Amino acid sequence: MAAISSISLKTPTKIQSLPKTHYAVPLNLPFSCRSKSKRTGSIGSRTRIRCGLLIEPDGGKLVELFVEESQRELKREDALKLPKIKLTKIDLEWVHVLSEGWASPLKGFMREDEFLQTLHFNSIRLEDGSVVNMSVPIVLAIDDSQKNLIGGSSSVALVDDEYNPIAILSDIEIYKHNKEERIARTWGTTAPGLPYVDEAITHSGNWLVGGDLKVIDPVKYNDGLDRFRLSPAELRDEFTRRNADAVFAFQLRNPVHNGHALLMTDTRRRLLEMGYKNPVLLLHPLGGYTKADDVPLHWRMKQHEKVLEDGVLDPETTVVSIFPSPMHYAGPTEVQWHAKARINAGANFYIVGRDPAGMSHPLDKRDLYDADHGKKVLSMAPGLERLNILPFRVAAYDKTKNGMAFFDPSRPQDFIFISGTKMRTLAKTKESPPDGFMCPGGWKVLVEYYDSLDQAENG
Amino acid sequence: MAAISSISLKTPTKIQSLPKTHYAVPLNLPFSCRSKSKRTGSIGSRTRIRCGLLIEPDGGKLVELFVEESQRELKREDALKLPKIKLTKIDLEWVHVLSEGWASPLKGFMREDEFLQTLHFNSIRLEDGSVVNMSVPIVLAIDDSQKNLIGGSSSVALVDDEYNPIAILSDIEIYKHNKEERIARTWGTTAPGLPYVDEAITHSGNWLVGGDLKVIDPVKYNDGLDRFRLSPAELRDEFTRRNADAVFAFQLRNPVHNGHALLMTDTRRRLLEMGYKNPVLLLHPLGGYTKADDVPLHWRMKQHEKVLEDGVLDPETTVVSIFPSPMHYAGPTEVQWHAKARINAGANFYIVGRDPAGMSHPLDKRDLYDADHGKKVLSMAPGLERLNILPFRVAAYDKTKNGMAFFDPSRPQDFIFISGTKMRTLAKTKESPPDGFMCPGGWKVLVEYYDSLDQAENG
Repeated sequence: MAAISSISLKTPTKIQSLPKTHYAVPLNLPFSCRSKSKRTGSIGSRTRIRCGLLIEPDGGKLVELFVEESQRELKREDALKLPKIKLTKIDLEWVHVLSEGWASPLKGFMREDEFLQTLHFNSIRLEDGSVVNMSVPIVLAIDDSQKNLIGGSSSVALVDDEYNPIAILSDIEIYKHNKEERIARTWGTTAPGLPYVDEAITHSGNWLVGGDLKVIDPVKYNDGLDRFRLSPAELRDEFTRRNADAVFAFQLRNPVHNGHALLMTDTRRRLLEMGYKNPVLLLHPLGGYTKADDVPLHWRMKQHEKVLEDGVLDPETTVVSIFPSPMHYAGPTEVQWHAKARINAGANFYIVGRDPAGMSHPLDKRDLYDADHGKKVLSMAPGLERLNILPFRVAAYDKTKNGMAFFDPSRPQDFIFISGTKMRTLAKTKESPPDGFMCPGGWKVLVEYYDSLDQAENG
Repeated sequence: MAAISSISLKTPTKIQSLPKTHYAVPLNLPFSCRSKSKRTGSIGSRTRIRCGLLIEPDGGKLVELFVEESQRELKREDALKLPKIKLTKIDLEWVHVLSEGWASPLKGFMREDEFLQTLHFNSIRLEDGSVVNMSVPIVLAIDDSQKNLIGGSSSVALVDDEYNPIAILSDIEIYKHNKEERIARTWGTTAPGLPYVDEAITHSGNWLVGGDLKVIDPVKYNDGLDRFRLSPAELRDEFTRRNADAVFAFQLRNPVHNGHALLMTDTRRRLLEMGYKNPVLLLHPLGGYTKADDVPLHWRMKQHEKVLEDGVLDPETTVVSIFPSPMHYAGPTEVQWHAKARINAGANFYIVGRDPAGMSHPLDKRDLYDADHGKKVLSMAPGLERLNILPFRVAAYDKTKNGMAFFDPSRPQDFIFISGTKMRTLAKTKESPPDGFMCPGGWKVLVEYYDSLDQAENG
């Protein structure tokens, strides 16, 4: 899979030959590229970032929360003396997210002011009066006994299952965890059966603890995929190394089919038409918690590898990396988080599809969210004014072309829509999808995955 | 009751004698008083509006939505030809609210973009990129049959019970009314038993219709209280006439006791200390829908009248008026609406208490909202940066003084807290509250009210 790692790919020579002056300003300077142009519906007029630099991180500076290497042993010893909070798997994913600055300018798990602003405004006002987007609560729940254990300590150690210290949370604030209100305001429903709620909230404690986070060792999973887990800083370095003058992010948690590929290729074409010289795609599968019936990360990564190997996407202009966040399935609320985190990684264009981060209503026979709300909410979200939103064009299987194409409403009879559910059913039953729906190598991975499930069930 | 009407009170001579130059700029000019000073916790440093003018309405201009008098007959005839939507009592209250500009810069019932921004961000971004607060949806629900009736018409007539045209809604947009999501995001719960939900949402239609509103005749209730229903424009005129250099608003939906009076008097004292020459109190009882166990408006107005007659508040520096909005009981979400609407009426200071717009959880034995969240959310709310938030100091009955006083935590044994529930119980059972809790005339009104309830029950 190393073949598709952004890190291992050589910088294309043709891009290196661009005049140096075009990228004269070093990347890490906090340098505002904001223009005052008004947002409109058209892609052309919304382009803001044309000054040869990557988009500025939220708050002006990428906030990394690592203990300096020389201090690690010292901090590990400090941590051993502190009250300890054992992290769940999802807590650890959030520690990862926070530590690398995906949620910049957050400096740790939210204190109550940040939590309330997130719930009510999907955004946080900074000291200087500016506003950054923040739509999902990044919080750490503790129960009564943990709260008692902390007592009056102003710092706590966050530890793994074996009580190894992972991080220190200091200058802490403990406040009430009103789960019902958190769920209602984040998901717009309190219906039982929301995956993240069942997994991470229902049985969590009645208190939240916020504070300043310092991570002792960068979070690693040792699952063979760590090399794809580029931090926002590493992604920014990579985009700069590639001399990207536009970065367009594609969030996904499903296998890539040729409709996706068409969309990504077409987006690049549109960006070139707009005058960008080297738009780079950030193909950015979500790597944290997903619900049980989603295809697991390592199978998805295998599938993505095949797609790139088959030449459906151009490796020279594509960076594949893993986004470490867990999935909320909170639709219009969550899509803002997905977009905001990619700004921090250097993306100034974000592709948004139908019903992003959506799912079926857990009780009623309908989608939980209106399919268009994600796109609409994203385009109006506070703190995301700098990001260029690219709405998905609907792709479907065109029988006249034997391949995926943008749906043409003048001849609907020529198109077949293959939903995720249908795709999964086909792969489970080992039926082949129509020719040209997905590259054969990618499809094979999917079939293998469902085979492995069968074997696990039968064995 | 005319004695306490702001309109009927003479302008105090001492205020008229202030030099004219102090108020040289006419009121209705859109003139920005915003300062760039940072908000801090202290009351002094948050004062923004010191330029001798009332605070600017949201969006820069008070939006009144009345048909010009000369056009009324014409519009009434137009309305008769349009598809008709019959307004509920609460719908009519919103028509009233919108028509007078309390929700400026809204131009009518919300279209979907405004609705979504309200639900997700508690604020709306305007064309020029600025943000105004808007936390509760002001929407008009219609059912399938009404939607069918409207068909392709771009305008509808809003009519009363007898099909008299009240207003025209034009350039309409019809979109889905996802009640569950609306309720969850507005109240932070979907528990059955929320009063506004039961009254106005549960049985309402599955569609919302937004558009530009024009009201043919100003809304009147003919209940003897219309003269207290001053519009934002009328209130602004009144504050200007009184040469107010600060306006502090006190929202209430309960009888006024001496603790409230102490607070209001003390606020005026603090504003004078800050250097204001003539701070005026807007005592602003809510006049729209309230839940069944709240004291009805006309009894509250009688009670307020007694309080002013008894000299507890100074009529020269107090304007009593009715705020026509219905009550959501949506705590931290709703308090923003209460504050925002008062900006439009000219108030630049807003007094906020413990658990504003709160109530008990409909199912659980607890308050629905954290008592401090209202104040916190209000102080961080987008679009309310210009408003000076004055947190309530807790008043209680001081046994050593035989009167209401600010609670002194160094001698808690000296204080008795008399909750709204306790006050109601005392009045119902005709027990007297401690001397000095409420002026006798005001208390008598309350006892009479509960008497009238008993008589109604027995008769």
